[in-house]
Amino acid sequence: MREKWVVHFHEGNAGMKDLLGGKGANLAEMTRAGLPVPPGFTITTDACRFYMNNGGMLPDGLWEQVKEALQHLEKESGKRFGDPDSPLLVSVRSGAKFSMPGMMDTILNLGLNDRTVEGLSSATGNPRFAYDCYRRFIQMFGDVVLEIPHYLFEKIINERKEKAKVQYDTELEAADWKEVTSRFKQLILRQTGKRFPEDPMEQLRQAAEAVFKSWNNARAKVYRKMNRIPDTLGTAVNVQMMVFGNMGEDSGTGVAFTRNPSSGDRELYGEFLLNAQGEDVVAGIRTPQPIRVLQEKMPEIDQELKRICQELERYYQDMQDIEFTIERGKLYILQTRAGKRTAQAAVKIAVDLAYEGIIDRDEALLRIAPEQLDQMLHRRIDPNAPKEVLAKGLPASPGAASGKIVFDADQAEQLAGKGEKVILVRPETTPEDIHGILAAQGILTTRGGMTSHAAVVARGMGKACVCGLEQLKIDLRLKEAVLGEIRLKEGDFISIDGSTGQVIRGEVPLIDPELSAEFRELLNWADERRVLGVRANADNPVDAGKARQLGAEGIGLCRTEHMFMEAERVPIVQEMILAETFAERERALAKLLPMQKEDFKGIFREMDGLPVTIRLLDPPLHEFLPNSEELIVELTKMQMQGRDKEEEYLEKEKLLKKVRALSEFNPMLGHRGCRLGLTHPEIYEMQVKAIFLAADECRREGINVMPEIMIPLVGHVNELKRMRELVERVAAETVKEGEAISYSVGTMIEVPRAALTADEIATEADFFSFGTNDLTQTTFGFSRDDAEGKFLHGYVENKILADNPFVTLDRKGVGQLVRLGVEKGRSVKPELKVGICGEHGGEKNSIQFCHEAGLQYVSCSPFRVPLARLAAAQAAISVKKEQKQKN
Amino acid sequence: MREKWVVHFHEGNAGMKDLLGGKGANLAEMTRAGLPVPPGFTITTDACRFYMNNGGMLPDGLWEQVKEALQHLEKESGKRFGDPDSPLLVSVRSGAKFSMPGMMDTILNLGLNDRTVEGLSSATGNPRFAYDCYRRFIQMFGDVVLEIPHYLFEKIINERKEKAKVQYDTELEAADWKEVTSRFKQLILRQTGKRFPEDPMEQLRQAAEAVFKSWNNARAKVYRKMNRIPDTLGTAVNVQMMVFGNMGEDSGTGVAFTRNPSSGDRELYGEFLLNAQGEDVVAGIRTPQPIRVLQEKMPEIDQELKRICQELERYYQDMQDIEFTIERGKLYILQTRAGKRTAQAAVKIAVDLAYEGIIDRDEALLRIAPEQLDQMLHRRIDPNAPKEVLAKGLPASPGAASGKIVFDADQAEQLAGKGEKVILVRPETTPEDIHGILAAQGILTTRGGMTSHAAVVARGMGKACVCGLEQLKIDLRLKEAVLGEIRLKEGDFISIDGSTGQVIRGEVPLIDPELSAEFRELLNWADERRVLGVRANADNPVDAGKARQLGAEGIGLCRTEHMFMEAERVPIVQEMILAETFAERERALAKLLPMQKEDFKGIFREMDGLPVTIRLLDPPLHEFLPNSEELIVELTKMQMQGRDKEEEYLEKEKLLKKVRALSEFNPMLGHRGCRLGLTHPEIYEMQVKAIFLAADECRREGINVMPEIMIPLVGHVNELKRMRELVERVAAETVKEGEAISYSVGTMIEVPRAALTADEIATEADFFSFGTNDLTQTTFGFSRDDAEGKFLHGYVENKILADNPFVTLDRKGVGQLVRLGVEKGRSVKPELKVGICGEHGGEKNSIQFCHEAGLQYVSCSPFRVPLARLAAAQAAISVKKEQKQKN
Repeated sequence: MREKWVVHFHEGNAGMKDLLGGKGANLAEMTRAGLPVPPGFTITTDACRFYMNNGGMLPDGLWEQVKEALQHLEKESGKRFGDPDSPLLVSVRSGAKFSMPGMMDTILNLGLNDRTVEGLSSATGNPRFAYDCYRRFIQMFGDVVLEIPHYLFEKIINERKEKAKVQYDTELEAADWKEVTSRFKQLILRQTGKRFPEDPMEQLRQAAEAVFKSWNNARAKVYRKMNRIPDTLGTAVNVQMMVFGNMGEDSGTGVAFTRNPSSGDRELYGEFLLNAQGEDVVAGIRTPQPIRVLQEKMPEIDQELKRICQELERYYQDMQDIEFTIERGKLYILQTRAGKRTAQAAVKIAVDLAYEGIIDRDEALLRIAPEQLDQMLHRRIDPNAPKEVLAKGLPASPGAASGKIVFDADQAEQLAGKGEKVILVRPETTPEDIHGILAAQGILTTRGGMTSHAAVVARGMGKACVCGLEQLKIDLRLKEAVLGEIRLKEGDFISIDGSTGQVIRGEVPLIDPELSAEFRELLNWADERRVLGVRANADNPVDAGKARQLGAEGIGLCRTEHMFMEAERVPIVQEMILAETFAERERALAKLLPMQKEDFKGIFREMDGLPVTIRLLDPPLHEFLPNSEELIVELTKMQMQGRDKEEEYLEKEKLLKKVRALSEFNPMLGHRGCRLGLTHPEIYEMQVKAIFLAADECRREGINVMPEIMIPLVGHVNELKRMRELVERVAAETVKEGEAISYSVGTMIEVPRAALTADEIATEADFFSFGTNDLTQTTFGFSRDDAEGKFLHGYVENKILADNPFVTLDRKGVGQLVRLGVEKGRSVKPELKVGICGEHGGEKNSIQFCHEAGLQYVSCSPFRVPLARLAAAQAAISVKKEQKQKN
Repeated sequence: MREKWVVHFHEGNAGMKDLLGGKGANLAEMTRAGLPVPPGFTITTDACRFYMNNGGMLPDGLWEQVKEALQHLEKESGKRFGDPDSPLLVSVRSGAKFSMPGMMDTILNLGLNDRTVEGLSSATGNPRFAYDCYRRFIQMFGDVVLEIPHYLFEKIINERKEKAKVQYDTELEAADWKEVTSRFKQLILRQTGKRFPEDPMEQLRQAAEAVFKSWNNARAKVYRKMNRIPDTLGTAVNVQMMVFGNMGEDSGTGVAFTRNPSSGDRELYGEFLLNAQGEDVVAGIRTPQPIRVLQEKMPEIDQELKRICQELERYYQDMQDIEFTIERGKLYILQTRAGKRTAQAAVKIAVDLAYEGIIDRDEALLRIAPEQLDQMLHRRIDPNAPKEVLAKGLPASPGAASGKIVFDADQAEQLAGKGEKVILVRPETTPEDIHGILAAQGILTTRGGMTSHAAVVARGMGKACVCGLEQLKIDLRLKEAVLGEIRLKEGDFISIDGSTGQVIRGEVPLIDPELSAEFRELLNWADERRVLGVRANADNPVDAGKARQLGAEGIGLCRTEHMFMEAERVPIVQEMILAETFAERERALAKLLPMQKEDFKGIFREMDGLPVTIRLLDPPLHEFLPNSEELIVELTKMQMQGRDKEEEYLEKEKLLKKVRALSEFNPMLGHRGCRLGLTHPEIYEMQVKAIFLAADECRREGINVMPEIMIPLVGHVNELKRMRELVERVAAETVKEGEAISYSVGTMIEVPRAALTADEIATEADFFSFGTNDLTQTTFGFSRDDAEGKFLHGYVENKILADNPFVTLDRKGVGQLVRLGVEKGRSVKPELKVGICGEHGGEKNSIQFCHEAGLQYVSCSPFRVPLARLAAAQAAISVKKEQKQKN
């Protein structure tokens, strides 16, 4: 049997990518599906490998097979290669198994020469078109195959335009192009010492070899190395008959979507032009007509197109984006692919396809990229509006916002009070800026990363936030900021997009989120399939309510420190911290107690019947104190002025001392979490008391309260043991006997030691909640606030890390600890409840991991709850599929 | 067979602790060894358990057995219980399996009553002694058995003293004590409604029951709970005949060490008093005589004692500390135990015992607590000198130092230049203080912990250092420091003990370290037995030389950053950091290159033929820049003064900006280690070039150079891969072809992810070195600098953690990662060399762990090398022993 180097489109299928490359396999598949694809054939990757391994020699028999294939094409098309009357023209394209930049580009219209160009001219009745095609072919061939610098061809065209005194290529006429082609050929002769090959077979041979050679050009090699694509794969060569839509009024070209890509509605969508080629549409010389007009103009073609569209949808089981050409009353499909669509359309189409029985509901769920849902839940910038992007910071909290620039929190509050929309722009924010953040539409900071104060607070509030825009230089005295050449003053309008990190000049129109019926339906299907529970991270009743509305099944993380950060409380919190006697501290705590109690009551009411995991105070106390640098500046000034305000000076000096005493070299690894609870039990006692008083009062209102008390930063079982004793004691003291409230006590697993010794820790825990933000920081030894600004970006860019581990959970390292923790914990307590409350709980790959690792739930910010519901369903479906495939 | 509730001393042995308690088993063992121990018997823990389980009822037959045992005692002693002429007196003591506070105290002289006291009086010829004994017995009995408050007895004594117009108990006479006893008895009748029991059998019964009851008192219960001692063990009761050394000139009492506890010399050492009781020695009324005088006074007793001492050493195979009493010419041994000794003596005794064939060399090695060696290698405070301890900080670098206080580095250098001894006292130190540290005898800081700059540098230099003495308030302007009430001025003398953290007023005499022949002998034995290699952490030729002299087999960690911190280099390092163009940075690096090269040459010369592990730059760059607070103060001052020095202001402002830009929230987790090497390859390139230039030049001198280049802070294999490429490239560029220097490239394992993915990392590493300091920080999530000052101390004190994990390696958490790392690393590369270079490398328990985990070597500071050699030998011996026991 002779070796087969050439495969016709009708002989192949989608599974033959190794042999035919991606493009070739695809063309074969379309042909197989009965689509009117222009006929053609593929020279296989085997031939390429042979060529590479044999010093650039084509295998024996290849050329005979190409000739046979061409004859077949001629038969199918009724045209002949090199026939001046009815010339067969072909395109030549490279096509490796994986799509790769750097490979040889397409060559169109191969087969043209001085004689066949005349045939094309008379067939289309358009000499200008024919010579334009011809010069394009020579130009591409010269550039790609003969490697003549591109600019030399451009120079010839420009000279012609000068001579003709015109500005654009489109203004040149047939004669001009004819002249250009002849000068192109002179150029080729000059550059290569050989004439441009008039023989179409010779053209084809040179083009095919050029494709093979391009496999080993420098750019392609680098790309393969970076993407770990083996050098031995080789590329295929696709040869396909050209068709023309400009052969008269019975010809045309167009693009059709099988459904509306914007709304998802079930209607043919697109546009076409009669007697035109694709370039004409792109060039914008003539205005295309909406696709519905095709029915009037060419009712039969319209029928056929509609039928094909329907078939294609059924065949590919998805909405298709189709390029077609009509050549003399015959419809050709040039390309079909899954159509790009908006998030709204994606959801509607998936649900509709399921209802139409084209796909099942599992498949419908898999069709939606979970992160798309995110844009449906926040206001976003109108994608159709023009915008001037000034810079890009870290996308710290999704959503978009426009408003006037203000540089301090008081000013923000004041202007917002007058109904103005403002964007708070700060070097960084502190608890003292909370009222400003609350008043602003969005926040922009120059320092800090995805876990900076501004980012965390903004995400909690669902406000847009862009962080770490280091190139923005703020001068707080002058109330202005400089971004490169641009000066932004207080009161100037600015817009930010917290989903992309973009900072945009001026006001930009925003679009409100829409929650369609299909969206709800899809999430219901997700809920039926997912195994993971989905909870929300929420610190106040508003967020809790929002979370419940979006489908949260409880609160997985209620951070009590945000309750300490409200403007009117900060002074009391400071009073507590600065207390010099136990009595003073107790007094301050007594003032905080009723406030905390009301916080919890509000949340319990919203979450009636659902569990609420409350984390006791976590951050180091110095976070609630003023900044030492500011104090130093003030003190130095007072010193220089002579100390006429002796008392105030001493007061400030005392404050500075305390700030210094509490300051830490590495606050992330410092005196926080349960370490605070152990050294200052009175703070945790107050919090626990507030929780149980609130629970008790709510119960009397008939509310079903399910508190879960979470101890942060445990690294040794003894820490949890002591804290558990504290909780149990205070609970017993607070609630009357016989009316006990059912609660549980658990811990965050957020330092490696907790995961490594989970079998000990589980003996004292009712539940584990993996705090994967901190666990990622400690496992890598990365301070997120420092890493993201200083080196992590470069790590991802240079592929040292595949992903930012704060966005996508690092399976090998952090994930190994999570699995170890789950396994060890359950080994001593099989009923142990295990969840995750880091930001990874709202990211699809990480959710997939949580499903695989056997966690019971994920918890994420309220606006990410729908995403998590969908991702959890996808995880369940894909794992089930894999298992099926294995069996 | 009747149940046995009572066991005679001569019936038991040391193995019967469960039944007889620790004390009872010990007394039995001494009796068995043929020692003249005063006879007695033990009521078993079985009896106690019966008593507890049967509502306080003594078991049937117990009392008969006690009576029989007493008769036996009477026969042995020739005295009779309750006999007024020759009364048998006994002591009653509790004794559980584990020694426990909170249990009933000793009752002495039981058996005394109004009649027998007269017998004792005439037997001793000392009525004052007899009545003092009697009143003590009643007092103890009343307090312990009858639970009458202690102060009521004291009140009676005080009234008597007032009446007698004397100040001290010792001034009261026989008649006074007789009067006191009768008032004690009235008190007992008043308080209990019952008379004091005159019947010795009744006294004994009540005392025994009181011992049983005390097992369940509150203090004992809490202690057992804390120490996990089962409540069901119960206690035994020991009843032993009293002997008296004050029965005339043929009686006496004393203490003897079988060898000199200070020097270890083989000679009887101790003192004695004739016709005296132990209390007389303690009270200091009479001066005891040296033991050698006993030979003149009582030659036979002296002979017997010497014989017994020799026997005891052989029996217990160690130097003994013996209490003895001579009653009417008969020698009794009251107690023998291993004698306390100095480090010097410990070493000499162990080596001598081995030479004498009493123990083998393995045992000799096990006898020395490795940490004792530490005090032999540093100057220390003369233990006999009086001293006033002012406060206690963190013991950051061992050794002691005295000198004048200075508050800045320049002053330190200046005074030291004049031959003065100074102690540098600073809030904290920075690289700019290095010349001051070098000049000072010792360093005292108020901030920072065991890894602060001062601590690390001092340990490296072998200088005494006390850190984190937070209560010391320094006023740099006034050049004074305040510690509570005490004001310390510049020039005042102070002493510090870096082994204990003590800060002492004034100058204290210091003792130089002595390295005896026995010390060297012992370490040679250790070297023959240990499996672990021992290397040193050394950053300069002096330390390297010292390390080699102390037995180091290479350098396990050479920190190149300390080379950057030398005073004359800091400006160049700053120039490099502040460089705004690549060319400027290259210029600064070019200046550093020859300096680094000379550093390495010096070290290579010292370590000829031994491996040197060089860690490339590790700390974040901002550590080399000035402090931002100081800059802010200066800038604020300049602002207030009007900017007449505009240029200087702008310069400083620029510097501040850079300091700010480089500053980090959590430097420990920030832009350091190989992260620097990846973002600023030019720095590592310079260092690698310096290493290979130095190696090359040394090789030409005939030195055998063995560099091992260590990449710090690797968390992902790709980091190491890129850095390895850099090292290999620069090595190839630096050293001529054909003259390649053999070197290896490895990594620190110091973040959890490195250990968790060691199987990946090992593919790029020739060796692993566990950096357990940082690994402990990241595994626990403890910043050492913050934790030790703020909560870790409390954690250890309150038994949340058994040990400070920065001192003793945490086996469960950090150790688990080390084992995982070793296992995974060797799974892909069996020949992988694995060591440890954290401070744990110089701590005995951690060294034991390293041996068990199969590491090849430990590396520690030069002065800890002998300790490590010994500890490594002990680990090998004890593991071998365990295996033997298993087989």
